[in-house]
Amino acid sequence: METRELLEQVKSGKISIEEAESYFKREPFEEMGYAKLDMHREVRSGFSEVIFCSGKADEHLLHIVGKLYEKNGEVFGTRASVHQYELVKEKFPAAEYDPLSGILKIDGKKREKKGLVAVCTAGTADIAVAEEAAQTAEYFGTKVERVFDVGVSGIHRLLFNIKEIQDANCVVAVAGMEGALASVIGGLVDVPVIAVPTSVGYGASFHGLSALLTMINSCANGIATVNIDNGYGAGYLATQINRLAIK
Amino acid sequence: METRELLEQVKSGKISIEEAESYFKREPFEEMGYAKLDMHREVRSGFSEVIFCSGKADEHLLHIVGKLYEKNGEVFGTRASVHQYELVKEKFPAAEYDPLSGILKIDGKKREKKGLVAVCTAGTADIAVAEEAAQTAEYFGTKVERVFDVGVSGIHRLLFNIKEIQDANCVVAVAGMEGALASVIGGLVDVPVIAVPTSVGYGASFHGLSALLTMINSCANGIATVNIDNGYGAGYLATQINRLAIK
Amino acid sequence: METRELLEQVKSGKISIEEAESYFKREPFEEMGYAKLDMHREVRSGFSEVIFCSGKADEHLLHIVGKLYEKNGEVFGTRASVHQYELVKEKFPAAEYDPLSGILKIDGKKREKKGLVAVCTAGTADIAVAEEAAQTAEYFGTKVERVFDVGVSGIHRLLFNIKEIQDANCVVAVAGMEGALASVIGGLVDVPVIAVPTSVGYGASFHGLSALLTMINSCANGIATVNIDNGYGAGYLATQINRLAIK
Amino acid sequence: METRELLEQVKSGKISIEEAESYFKREPFEEMGYAKLDMHREVRSGFSEVIFCSGKADEHLLHIVGKLYEKNGEVFGTRASVHQYELVKEKFPAAEYDPLSGILKIDGKKREKKGLVAVCTAGTADIAVAEEAAQTAEYFGTKVERVFDVGVSGIHRLLFNIKEIQDANCVVAVAGMEGALASVIGGLVDVPVIAVPTSVGYGASFHGLSALLTMINSCANGIATVNIDNGYGAGYLATQINRLAIK
Amino acid sequence: METRELLEQVKSGKISIEEAESYFKREPFEEMGYAKLDMHREVRSGFSEVIFCSGKADEHLLHIVGKLYEKNGEVFGTRASVHQYELVKEKFPAAEYDPLSGILKIDGKKREKKGLVAVCTAGTADIAVAEEAAQTAEYFGTKVERVFDVGVSGIHRLLFNIKEIQDANCVVAVAGMEGALASVIGGLVDVPVIAVPTSVGYGASFHGLSALLTMINSCANGIATVNIDNGYGAGYLATQINRLAIK
Amino acid sequence: METRELLEQVKSGKISIEEAESYFKREPFEEMGYAKLDMHREVRSGFSEVIFCSGKADEHLLHIVGKLYEKNGEVFGTRASVHQYELVKEKFPAAEYDPLSGILKIDGKKREKKGLVAVCTAGTADIAVAEEAAQTAEYFGTKVERVFDVGVSGIHRLLFNIKEIQDANCVVAVAGMEGALASVIGGLVDVPVIAVPTSVGYGASFHGLSALLTMINSCANGIATVNIDNGYGAGYLATQINRLAIK
Amino acid sequence: METRELLEQVKSGKISIEEAESYFKREPFEEMGYAKLDMHREVRSGFSEVIFCSGKADEHLLHIVGKLYEKNGEVFGTRASVHQYELVKEKFPAAEYDPLSGILKIDGKKREKKGLVAVCTAGTADIAVAEEAAQTAEYFGTKVERVFDVGVSGIHRLLFNIKEIQDANCVVAVAGMEGALASVIGGLVDVPVIAVPTSVGYGASFHGLSALLTMINSCANGIATVNIDNGYGAGYLATQINRLAIK
Amino acid sequence: METRELLEQVKSGKISIEEAESYFKREPFEEMGYAKLDMHREVRSGFSEVIFCSGKADEHLLHIVGKLYEKNGEVFGTRASVHQYELVKEKFPAAEYDPLSGILKIDGKKREKKGLVAVCTAGTADIAVAEEAAQTAEYFGTKVERVFDVGVSGIHRLLFNIKEIQDANCVVAVAGMEGALASVIGGLVDVPVIAVPTSVGYGASFHGLSALLTMINSCANGIATVNIDNGYGAGYLATQINRLAIK
Repeated sequence: METRELLEQVKSGKISIEEAESYFKREPFEEMGYAKLDMHREVRSGFSEVIFCSGKADEHLLHIVGKLYEKNGEVFGTRASVHQYELVKEKFPAAEYDPLSGILKIDGKKREKKGLVAVCTAGTADIAVAEEAAQTAEYFGTKVERVFDVGVSGIHRLLFNIKEIQDANCVVAVAGMEGALASVIGGLVDVPVIAVPTSVGYGASFHGLSALLTMINSCANGIATVNIDNGYGAGYLATQINRLAIK
Repeated sequence: METRELLEQVKSGKISIEEAESYFKREPFEEMGYAKLDMHREVRSGFSEVIFCSGKADEHLLHIVGKLYEKNGEVFGTRASVHQYELVKEKFPAAEYDPLSGILKIDGKKREKKGLVAVCTAGTADIAVAEEAAQTAEYFGTKVERVFDVGVSGIHRLLFNIKEIQDANCVVAVAGMEGALASVIGGLVDVPVIAVPTSVGYGASFHGLSALLTMINSCANGIATVNIDNGYGAGYLATQINRLAIK
Repeated sequence: METRELLEQVKSGKISIEEAESYFKREPFEEMGYAKLDMHREVRSGFSEVIFCSGKADEHLLHIVGKLYEKNGEVFGTRASVHQYELVKEKFPAAEYDPLSGILKIDGKKREKKGLVAVCTAGTADIAVAEEAAQTAEYFGTKVERVFDVGVSGIHRLLFNIKEIQDANCVVAVAGMEGALASVIGGLVDVPVIAVPTSVGYGASFHGLSALLTMINSCANGIATVNIDNGYGAGYLATQINRLAIK
Repeated sequence: METRELLEQVKSGKISIEEAESYFKREPFEEMGYAKLDMHREVRSGFSEVIFCSGKADEHLLHIVGKLYEKNGEVFGTRASVHQYELVKEKFPAAEYDPLSGILKIDGKKREKKGLVAVCTAGTADIAVAEEAAQTAEYFGTKVERVFDVGVSGIHRLLFNIKEIQDANCVVAVAGMEGALASVIGGLVDVPVIAVPTSVGYGASFHGLSALLTMINSCANGIATVNIDNGYGAGYLATQINRLAIK
Repeated sequence: METRELLEQVKSGKISIEEAESYFKREPFEEMGYAKLDMHREVRSGFSEVIFCSGKADEHLLHIVGKLYEKNGEVFGTRASVHQYELVKEKFPAAEYDPLSGILKIDGKKREKKGLVAVCTAGTADIAVAEEAAQTAEYFGTKVERVFDVGVSGIHRLLFNIKEIQDANCVVAVAGMEGALASVIGGLVDVPVIAVPTSVGYGASFHGLSALLTMINSCANGIATVNIDNGYGAGYLATQINRLAIK
Repeated sequence: METRELLEQVKSGKISIEEAESYFKREPFEEMGYAKLDMHREVRSGFSEVIFCSGKADEHLLHIVGKLYEKNGEVFGTRASVHQYELVKEKFPAAEYDPLSGILKIDGKKREKKGLVAVCTAGTADIAVAEEAAQTAEYFGTKVERVFDVGVSGIHRLLFNIKEIQDANCVVAVAGMEGALASVIGGLVDVPVIAVPTSVGYGASFHGLSALLTMINSCANGIATVNIDNGYGAGYLATQINRLAIK
Repeated sequence: METRELLEQVKSGKISIEEAESYFKREPFEEMGYAKLDMHREVRSGFSEVIFCSGKADEHLLHIVGKLYEKNGEVFGTRASVHQYELVKEKFPAAEYDPLSGILKIDGKKREKKGLVAVCTAGTADIAVAEEAAQTAEYFGTKVERVFDVGVSGIHRLLFNIKEIQDANCVVAVAGMEGALASVIGGLVDVPVIAVPTSVGYGASFHGLSALLTMINSCANGIATVNIDNGYGAGYLATQINRLAIK
Repeated sequence: METRELLEQVKSGKISIEEAESYFKREPFEEMGYAKLDMHREVRSGFSEVIFCSGKADEHLLHIVGKLYEKNGEVFGTRASVHQYELVKEKFPAAEYDPLSGILKIDGKKREKKGLVAVCTAGTADIAVAEEAAQTAEYFGTKVERVFDVGVSGIHRLLFNIKEIQDANCVVAVAGMEGALASVIGGLVDVPVIAVPTSVGYGASFHGLSALLTMINSCANGIATVNIDNGYGAGYLATQINRLAIK
């Protein structure tokens, strides 16, 4: 309802002043003292609120899981520990957990997977981050093709698999160390490439800084970068792009 | 033509060995000694080759402009100087130049503008980079809405213009200094946000590093970042996303 | 007593040479060998000495707590561990401890809370630092309004609570990751904003460096920044400003 | 006027729907295409809008100066060049310029100077930044005491002048190279100290980074830091604090 | 002559004490006051001394060129300016200069070119550094194959030219921006790859730091890296390796 | 077999279309789902695939060791833990382990050691990295001379041992802290020096960054650098150079 | 013995060829395989070899302690753990250990303490590093005055103790966080000040980098800086200076 | 005069209250508005005040030169430009200037040169900084031995000159690029080594940062470091040490 309509209804008495006031002062979040849960998020963005589990107190985590499960009938959490999984599992037996990616979920809706996003990694050590991306995208209804261990130091592995990658609406390129994978893929596809630097490496990789700089400086077109190890962010953004493509 | 088909045609004699050989050894670029121009780019990616003019020798620039104009009937260059414009203009009178963004083009095809991308800036000093993004997108056939000077230190300016931004298929958020614009927009729209840090600022902005870190660390969802001042990269990626959306 | 007065009293014999000498050579600290406790601090600055507990040896901590309690009738320590609390509690049963903020105190004076300072956080993980700020301010007699989890990626949460923030004499803005909260608040209030970057985040947050740079580069007016995770420093400074306002 | 009142007046017909709508959709800035000038700033914050002249095109600068002069009867610009001064002077003969600080102003209101802020520098090379702070504070009605060249390598110069500094409601400490001035002053006064690192220095000063880190890490209480060379920001914040003190 | 032999000859009187003393105190450099020219370098390392021209005073440069020309009958200088060339040319008419690479030489010996080193670049802007490498190698008698503009964002250009690269005894990979070229080549050849990061790029390339980190972190085997823009160092090392291979 | 030959054989029917197709689509790696093992590596590069053990899951490690042992009759792994050794030992009793360097191998082929590479360290703490280099080189058939603890702060130790170093075809210089060893050696030998910075040190060594920068900036000729602590990479590259020399 | 004399004695037969040869090939270190112990160090520099215990294997440590004790009748080790102390104590009952500084020694010679060096700290947390400096200096025969907890945020503590500091031949200034102590002392004394940054601090202290930069950029004269936490280095250098002064 | 004496003289009337007051309030600097010249410096430290000319306004420079010349009969300035020299020369014909080091002086006292300091450089490009150190030391009465171009990549040049270096009371080691000179010298002498990193170099030298880190991390004993290019600081400190040695 637009402001004008609302004012007209106030004037004509169709809605009360209190109702109108609540409209202007609407509180689209649940005040929990230590947190303000965004309950209208799905309406606004098409994505329900996700829990970043790392560092959350047990009590708070259970409280938030409960609130969201009650509201949405599903819950999706990232960077969860085994301990957090056991905690949640006890109270919500439908909870599932993937120790590799750290994803904890109650997948109540089992959305149909649509469109296509390719999630690629340079090495096997990058798979944990890649799975965070892939499972985030899948949770939000995206079909995902995994193409792992195709780093640029053995370019024939990537070229052999390029067809599957080229079919996607969006490619997520996950790489640590020198992080060159995104540039090479960027030159081989005509869709957006989301580059995810990982903290995989040692020495002058500086916990992912090297891969981040490589990706930000990519000379290929159609590439943008998210934070180091931010598989979730890449999976979310890939889903947005995939949704636009299949709309 | 797939490998199998090709081999069958070789066997049956439909095509000569020389033709088949050239297929496997095809050279989809024009060897110019100092450069290898990608002449099939438009076929492969839907985008014709773009010239990064900065630092190119006069002779090389003219040579490349000529080759591409002959092949494509249009030319698009970024980071061109006034001197380079005058040089090109003399030989190609159809050349146009925008001194703010440094874009030099021969817009031979005048594509229809489709879909919608919003290009926003935090301040007026960010407009040069924003125009590089906007005009790149427009050149490749994207309709662009410009929303300038809506930085977060006066949030009411952004909120007042949010409707126009929310209508876009993709938002480009251009900001220097603390670079917080992308995060705020990310929380207000449900489409991808491409964050472009700029080198605008002084002191601890470290020529855009501060804005880059801000954007890479954004706590909002659906954001990815390109290089500092890389308006071209953002405009290109926004066009890819916009094309997927209107396909 | 000014130098001139003192000299006149020496000359006139009103005070002895020894007394005068001690005046010039006064030692306004307690020499403890390993430390020099500032015993006149409250007189000089209006704030009694505070203990930075982290890393202090058990014996030293107890010694210092004892000295200050004897002198001031109250003690305030930051970054205390549970172990340190138990140690102090045993000897000083009036000791209290807040595990979230790490504050350990013997609140002997229970000052009346005056004026108003708002302490805001971007996320829930920033609350530990925010509580250090809030409880420091309260200990020194400042009334504090807590406004937590109002980060810029969901700007409506901040706007909904802006009234309470605008009533304060000073705002403390606590944020990690991209740290944009301070800039947005800076544009919405007309009082000083003390920005506290936190080490909350991962990857390119570089343990708070990203948030620190964001805040230092803020394009909003009326903002200054303290060290990463320095809630104590912000609470102290906010109290100084609040005292000036209510003087 | 609060939302409720407004709605009641709409209902009762005291104000028209159009008037009410404009209230909710108010545009408290002047749209200039390339910029959105904040015209209600003074009402909202008690400070009129200030122009950051550096990098502004001639035409834009004149346009903005004109708009603000017409609206406020005074104009204040920072980081102006001699060329910009001559440009403005020609059209607005009342314009004044200080080449040291780069401040360009039309001081139409000549506010009475109240309260007291001390602006200190470590060396003579820091004076340019200090003057930006001092003149900003003066423009907004603050009385300023300048105490220059009192760096810590000759501590007696500072101690000799400490009385004047201790009388202020707020101290601005401006220093480059190792930037230790703020810490020493912080231990000698009981009011807020705003630390301004400068880019003065060479080698490992890294254009002010060293001084910035020193100030951010200060072990003294009651200190917060602004950006490198940001005299304006310090003068603005000092004025806010001074206003609170003399309110 | 070994120490023992020498001592025996001293004892037997075959050589005088003075001769023996000069042996132990030999001064294998020419003392020029401001410099100590290494005159035995060619004997020791197989490479004559090279002049780093950048920043040398005119008088010193001429002096050094003269000394080396007299001694070696050839001179090789890097990073020379046009001015320095003109200066040297006037006195030594045989001097040649390449403005692209900045190499200034009197190629008195015209060594036969042997073996094979491939010098590759990612883009055209990297050619200046690549030429420094190539011409250094050629001056020292190495046959060089140039393969320019084969960056990873258009991987087919590299694959098309890979045969020529695979024939070399050593590959020099020159790249700026994200610097991924070395990794890809490293996976395609079985000889040493010398990676040369260049300062080509902008924004987060940080003047070559990004490319340097990429190359140092390469996940391919058989790669080592020299300083940013250090074409000379790569050409020298490639020659050493090539000499070992053709020995 | 070249493309042309192949096509001729297709045409003449010497090989079937399926065989030819498999040639173009050959998959020279073993798809293991989580990894793509390069099985033709030895043919292509003369080096069999090496396992980077660090971080590999037990099950994956055993699987890969098995595959490679079956294929190559030998296995070489770096950065293995004692736990991983015990795991492998249980299933493959021929496995050997060196706890200092972390190398785990099944040395089935016992190649003859040829040529000569010198591996030098600055201090004793650098030996772990040096052994990774030395044992890698030895595994691939290189004869290695170890010269440890010859850092530049006691230059006589290096000079005393210089003869053995000068006999090598390639020198590996391993040093942490200030990392100056490579430069000094570079001036004393006429063969390639591979510099390996180590993370040995404290304070401003920044985990090897200082040594890395020293080595990259070396003013000596014939030096190139690998990643911090990358003994494996140095041993591999040294072997490539040694092979060229003894070919 | 000079080279000439030696040769004359060879010629005249006063010494044998073997003796002379050993002179030229003298090996002033003890080869231990994993290390080369410098046994002539005391003769050459006036300081016996010191053991950096951190990270040494038990067996190696015992071996080196034994060798040095046998040779020198005393042993001095830095950065020793309690475990290492117990190990050494068992075999060498005269061993002493200070857990604060980590110094482990067998003080067999008990040199007389001469001259004077002042060792100052900014805070109590810096004392561990200061004790490493003080005890190193004392071990080598220097008289040390400790002046702890005189940081610049309470400048009166430093001024009160300045006399004792001014009497020294050299001052060691130990400080973490913002590290300003060295500059202030530098302005108050006329002897060399050795600045030791410590890793004490948090947030933007970056493990001592901030204090290091402060000290390197000091605007006071007569200051030089050693590595972060390098108390040993400062104590050694202070002893060298003190020895020169009392010579 | 001590405080007690003074008070006794006040009491006894030997000195007036005004005289005593001026003693306590003495102002040992000359207030010049923009600067506070330290006029008692020579008395206090044995060194007269030195002018850092860089960036000083013409009028200020002349004013300060005049004041110091009048007071001390000599003037010493560093980092002076040719323009500044001409300016000063006109008014003070005795002024001398060395364009290499940028030192401008009126050497009125011509002190006798005593003791010995060796000033060494790695390369010829480091001589400008070395001369600043050498001439500073000479101005303050130190005898200086220059040993230039003895960098570690040709270690024989250093070893050949080591005797002259070993005779000094203090060595200044000036080096850019990888900065290893200080470590090697540190192992060859038994007196303090002051390391001066220079900004000589390119690429990853990062304007002297690499050399600074090398020197700070030196594994040799008896080394401390000053700021990048700070020849003056090294010359000053070397003079302090030399004075202690010859006292």
